[in-house]
Amino acid sequence: MVYYAGVDLGATNVRAVVADGDGTIVGSHEQGTPRGPTGIAVTEAVLGVLREACANANIDPDQITTAGIGSIGPLDLAEGAVIDPANLPDTIDRIPLTGPIMNLIESDEVYLHNDTNAGVIGERFYSDRNPDDMAYLTISSGIGAGICVDGSVLSGWDGNAGEVGHMVVDPQGQLTCGCGKDGHWEAYCSGNNIPRYTRWIHQEDPVETALPVEDPEFSAADVFELAGKDPLADHVIEQVGHWNAMGVANIIHAYAPLVIYVGGAVALNNEELVLGPLKEELSEMVFTNVPDVQLTTLGDDVVVKGALASAMTRGTGDRAKLH
Amino acid sequence: MVYYAGVDLGATNVRAVVADGDGTIVGSHEQGTPRGPTGIAVTEAVLGVLREACANANIDPDQITTAGIGSIGPLDLAEGAVIDPANLPDTIDRIPLTGPIMNLIESDEVYLHNDTNAGVIGERFYSDRNPDDMAYLTISSGIGAGICVDGSVLSGWDGNAGEVGHMVVDPQGQLTCGCGKDGHWEAYCSGNNIPRYTRWIHQEDPVETALPVEDPEFSAADVFELAGKDPLADHVIEQVGHWNAMGVANIIHAYAPLVIYVGGAVALNNEELVLGPLKEELSEMVFTNVPDVQLTTLGDDVVVKGALASAMTRGTGDRAKLH
Repeated sequence: MVYYAGVDLGATNVRAVVADGDGTIVGSHEQGTPRGPTGIAVTEAVLGVLREACANANIDPDQITTAGIGSIGPLDLAEGAVIDPANLPDTIDRIPLTGPIMNLIESDEVYLHNDTNAGVIGERFYSDRNPDDMAYLTISSGIGAGICVDGSVLSGWDGNAGEVGHMVVDPQGQLTCGCGKDGHWEAYCSGNNIPRYTRWIHQEDPVETALPVEDPEFSAADVFELAGKDPLADHVIEQVGHWNAMGVANIIHAYAPLVIYVGGAVALNNEELVLGPLKEELSEMVFTNVPDVQLTTLGDDVVVKGALASAMTRGTGDRAKLH
Repeated sequence: MVYYAGVDLGATNVRAVVADGDGTIVGSHEQGTPRGPTGIAVTEAVLGVLREACANANIDPDQITTAGIGSIGPLDLAEGAVIDPANLPDTIDRIPLTGPIMNLIESDEVYLHNDTNAGVIGERFYSDRNPDDMAYLTISSGIGAGICVDGSVLSGWDGNAGEVGHMVVDPQGQLTCGCGKDGHWEAYCSGNNIPRYTRWIHQEDPVETALPVEDPEFSAADVFELAGKDPLADHVIEQVGHWNAMGVANIIHAYAPLVIYVGGAVALNNEELVLGPLKEELSEMVFTNVPDVQLTTLGDDVVVKGALASAMTRGTGDRAKLH
C-alpha cells in the first residue's frame, strides 16, 4: 500500500495531510506554528503534525512513500531548510525540513517548494483544466506567485522567479515595501500593507472616515468591511484594485498564462472587492490574450494540497507524471 | 558534411548565414526587407537571401541539414508563418516561413522563433557563461525579451511570454502604446516612442530646447546626440532611464535571471546613456539578487546568430544539445 504526505509550513499554521495511493485524503492534522525559541522547535512541530496526520490515518510514518512540502521562505533548496524567515521571530534563523522528514518517513523522496510554487502545483493537479501555462497568485500578508510556463514550474537560478509582489508599480516610489525598496506592488496591496497605505492616503487628504486609522490594530479587514459605507474605504479599495490590475497585467505580459488562480486571505475573504476592480481594468491594460482570473478552487488548502500533489507527481503537479 | 543555416527576418533587413558542422560561418547574405506587395514577396526574399548565403558558401541549399529562423512577429508557430506583422505595410498579411524553407533545404528540421527568443538562444549558445537563467532584452523600435528560466526558453500558451515592453509602468497611463493600451514601458522608452514622449514632456513644460521637436523627422537619435548639451534631452534621458529601471526590475522579479543581455539599436548605439542610468537605479528597486546587465556581445548579429545556434542545438541554444 502506497501513501503520500503533504505538509504546509505557514507563518501561522503547520498542516499535514496523508493520502492513499489514489490520492484520497485519509488523515490530517494542524497546529499553530511555534514562535520559537529556535528553528528546531518549528521542525519538531512539523514532524509532530505529520506524525499526528499519520496516526489519524492509522498508518506509521514509515509507510509514507513520498512527501511534498510547501513552506514559507526564503528556502535554501540545497540544504532543504528555511533560512531567516521574514514572518517569524528573529530567534528563528534556520528551520531544517527535508532531512528530518526523510528520516521520519524513511524515504528520500521529499520535495520542497516555497508556498506559491506548491500553490501552482496544486492548481495544476486539481484544476479541471490542468493547463501547462498558469499562475497561482497569493494576496495575503505578502504578494507572490507560483508560475508554470510550457509545463514547467519556474524556479530561477536562486529560486526567486515569481517574486511578483516586488515588481515596481509606482514610478514615484511613494511607499516603502517590507523588503526596504520603494514602490513595490506589495507595499500598497498586501494584507500587511493596506492599513499603512490607507493611513498614508488619509494623511495626504484627511477626509472624514469611520475607519479606525489611529488604532494600532487597524487592519485590512476593517477597510473591506466598510466598502460602500465609507468614502476612504472605497477610495482605498479602488486604488488597491488599480495597483492589483497593474501587477496582474505585468504577470500576463511576463508569462502568458491561460489562467490565473488567486488565493491568500485578502483575496479569499473579499472576492468581489479584490477581483472585481482588478478584472474590470485588465482589458484596458493588457495587449495580449487576457486569461481567466479567478479564485483558487482549493481555498485555504491550496498549499497543503499542492504539497500532496507534488508528492504524487514527482514534484511537478503534472498528472501525466503520477507515480 | 553537415551545414546549418540561420535566418533573421527583420522589419528592415533579411539576413542569412550558413555554417559548417563546427559552427564556423562559411557564407552569408543580406538584403532589405521587401515592403510588399504581399507576404509571399517577403517569403521569396527570405528564400533568395538563404540561396545567396549558400552560393556564398559554395554549397547547394539541400546540403543544409537544419535551419533556424528568428523573425518579427506575431508568429503562428503551428502554421510556421508571420501573421499581420505590425512593422510592415498592411498589404502584408501572412508570410509563410517554415514550409518554404523546409522545401528549399529538403529537410524538415526547421526551428522558428520570434526574434527575441532567437536572441536569448544566441546568448545562451555564444556566451562564455551559458547559464540556464538569462534574459535577452531588446530596446529597439519596440521593447521585448526572450527569457530562459531553469534551462528552458519560455513560450507561453500563445507564444506571448516575454512581452515585457507591454508591462504597465505608469499607473497614470499618461502615454498610449502602439498596441493601443496605456502606460506601457514601450510607450515611453522604445526608439519609436522616445520622440513622442519628448514632445509630450515639452508640451507639459515648454522649456527652451535645441531638440527639433516640431520636425516630423525628429528621432530618438537626436535626443541622445544632445545629451549633456540640452536640458530637455538630459531630462528625457533621465526619465527614460527611470522607466527602463522599472521594466528591468520587473524582469528580475519575474524571472530571476543571472544575466540580462541588452540589444536593439537604442541600447547598442547609446550604451552609456541607456544602460548607465538604468543600472544606477536597479539596486534601489530590486529586492532579490541583482543580475549583471550588459550589452549583448553579439551586436547586430544576435538574432541571425541565435537562429543559427537554434539550428545547431535542436531549437534550444543549449550546447549540451549540439547535434
